[in-house]
Amino acid sequence: MFRIGVDIGGTNIAAGIVDESYRIVEKKSIKTKDAKTPSEMIGAIAELVKDLMGTAQVKPEMVTAIGVGVPGTLDPESGKVLYANNLGFEDVPFLSELKKALGDILADKIYFDNDANAAAIGEYITGDYHAKNFVMMTIGTGIGGGVIINGRVLRGCNYAAAEFGHMTINFDGVDCNCGRKGCFEDYASAEGLMNLAWEAISSPEGKKSMLSSRVSSREELDGEIFFEAVRSGDKVAAQVLEQYLFYLSEGIINIINIFQPDVLTLSGGITKAADLYLDRLKELVAKGIYSRNSSKNTEIMLSKGISDSGDIGIIGAALIYKM
Amino acid sequence: MFRIGVDIGGTNIAAGIVDESYRIVEKKSIKTKDAKTPSEMIGAIAELVKDLMGTAQVKPEMVTAIGVGVPGTLDPESGKVLYANNLGFEDVPFLSELKKALGDILADKIYFDNDANAAAIGEYITGDYHAKNFVMMTIGTGIGGGVIINGRVLRGCNYAAAEFGHMTINFDGVDCNCGRKGCFEDYASAEGLMNLAWEAISSPEGKKSMLSSRVSSREELDGEIFFEAVRSGDKVAAQVLEQYLFYLSEGIINIINIFQPDVLTLSGGITKAADLYLDRLKELVAKGIYSRNSSKNTEIMLSKGISDSGDIGIIGAALIYKM
Repeated sequence: MFRIGVDIGGTNIAAGIVDESYRIVEKKSIKTKDAKTPSEMIGAIAELVKDLMGTAQVKPEMVTAIGVGVPGTLDPESGKVLYANNLGFEDVPFLSELKKALGDILADKIYFDNDANAAAIGEYITGDYHAKNFVMMTIGTGIGGGVIINGRVLRGCNYAAAEFGHMTINFDGVDCNCGRKGCFEDYASAEGLMNLAWEAISSPEGKKSMLSSRVSSREELDGEIFFEAVRSGDKVAAQVLEQYLFYLSEGIINIINIFQPDVLTLSGGITKAADLYLDRLKELVAKGIYSRNSSKNTEIMLSKGISDSGDIGIIGAALIYKM
Repeated sequence: MFRIGVDIGGTNIAAGIVDESYRIVEKKSIKTKDAKTPSEMIGAIAELVKDLMGTAQVKPEMVTAIGVGVPGTLDPESGKVLYANNLGFEDVPFLSELKKALGDILADKIYFDNDANAAAIGEYITGDYHAKNFVMMTIGTGIGGGVIINGRVLRGCNYAAAEFGHMTINFDGVDCNCGRKGCFEDYASAEGLMNLAWEAISSPEGKKSMLSSRVSSREELDGEIFFEAVRSGDKVAAQVLEQYLFYLSEGIINIINIFQPDVLTLSGGITKAADLYLDRLKELVAKGIYSRNSSKNTEIMLSKGISDSGDIGIIGAALIYKM
C-alpha cells in the first residue's frame, strides 16, 4: 500500500508517493503561482496526484491515504482553509473541492493539516523518536514549530498551534510583521541572525572584522559566509553568535518551561553549522529552564536530517492520517 | 464510591473525600510546617487520609483513588518528587513511602501530580467544558498553568509543564526569582499589578490620586483597594490597569499562538474584579493573536468559580487518576 503526500509551498507544490518504509517512490511538482484562483490550485493538485499515480502505476485501491500540508489556518470540521496568507486563500472549502476533483474512489482517503504540523509528523514518525512529548522547531526565514503529545499532533482549534515564531520575548522590542513587537523569530530566525551580524559589522569596530571584508551589502551576507567567519576565528562574528544564542535560548527555554518535552529537535538551514554552537546552546538552556533542578529534562537534538531535503513536507503530509 | 484528594500547599495540607458528583463530603487539613522532614510529611498525609476515612466512615474498598497534588517536579516512572522548592524536597521517593504508610489495601490506588495540573484537572472535569484543547491560567502571587489536550493533562517529561509564569516576555526586563529576566509573572501576576500600582502612585502625579490617598505603604496596597479606586474613576489606577492588561495580554497571546486552545480560563483572586477589565483584555488579545484572521479562535473565560474556594486543588487531586 502507498500514501500520497502533497506539500504546498510558496514556490512549488510538491507531491510524492510514499511507500511502507517512508521512502518516496515517485515525486513531481508544479509552480504554485501557475494557479490563479483557489479552485484552479485545487484542480491542479488533483491533476498532480492523478499524474503521479499514473506514472507510478498506483491504482486507487493501492492508496491508504492522501494528505495535503497547507501553509495556513484550517477548520477541521468544515474542511475549509480559513486563511492562508501566502496563497491568498480565505475561507476556501478545500477538502470538499479536492474530494470532488479526485473523485469518489479517493474521496474518503483525503486529509489535510497545517504544513508545519505535517513536517513535524514526518520527522516524528521517520525519526523514530519514541518520545511521548515531542517538539520540533524549524529555524528558517521565520521560526515554525510542530508539537506531538501522546502520539498526536497538537493542532489547536484551528490547526494553527505551535506558532513559536510569534511568541514575544521582548514586548518593547523590534516591530514584527505580525503586528506585535519583539517576537522570537525577529531575533532568532536565520534572518534575525543576519540582521544582527550586519548591524555588528556596520559599527566602527565591526568594519575591521574579517566578516566585514567579505561582504559589502546586507544582501551579500548569508549563513555560509557568517559561519565561515566564526570558524576562522573572527571575533566580531563570534560575539554576534553568542548574542544570537542568547536570543535562541530564551525562546527555547520558554518552550521547554511550557511543554517539558522529552525531545526538542532543531531543524532548518542554520543547523548545518550546529557543530559550532550546539553545546553552548544546550548550556544556556540548561542554566535557564525552570526545571533545572529536576533529574529529568528535555533532550535537545538536531532533527534527523531528511528535513533539509524538503521531502519531509511530502512524507509528513502523506502520514497526516496517522496522527 | 469515593475518591480522596490531598492538596499540599505552602501553608496547609488539605485533604477531602470527594463523591461521584465531585462534591467534598468531608474535609480536613494540617499545617505544612508541622512536618520537619519529607518522611514526616508523608506520614502526616497518610494519617490525615486515614483520619478522614474514619470520620466519614469510608472503608478502603469504597475508595476508587487517592491523589496528591504536589507543588514540584515529579518523576512519574520512579514515583519520586524530584524537586519541590517550597517544601524543601529533593529526590524524595514520595509514592513508595506513601504507599507503605497507607498500607497494602490502598497502595494500588495512589496517584500524584503537580498541583497546578491537579487544579486544571479539577476545573476541566467539574466545569464540564467539552473542549478538546483547554488551558487554565491561574493568576496569583505568581502565574501557574495547566493544559489539557485530547482529554489528557499535559505533564511533560517531569510533570513540570505549563509553567506559564516563567515564560520571558521581556528578555532584558526585571530580574525574576527564577534567574532569568522579564518573566510573564513578574509583570502580570497580582504581585506585578501591585508593584505597578505602587510605582505609579509614588510618582509626583500619582501622589495626587485617590489611590495614593488610601495607602501609605506598598504593604497596605492590595487588589481590593486598587480595584475600588478603578471603580471610583481614579485616573491613575485606570492607567495602571491599562498597562497591566497590556502585559497580561502579551502572555495570553503567546500561549494562544502556541496552543490555540478551544478555551482559555482565567482564575485566581484578581479575576474577582474581572467585570472591570475582561472585555478590554479580550479586545487586546483578539488584536494580537497570529490567528486573528481565522474564523475560529480561543474563547477566553473566567474559570467556573469553585477555584477560588481552594477546593479545586482537593477535587482535582482526587481526579488525577482519570487523566
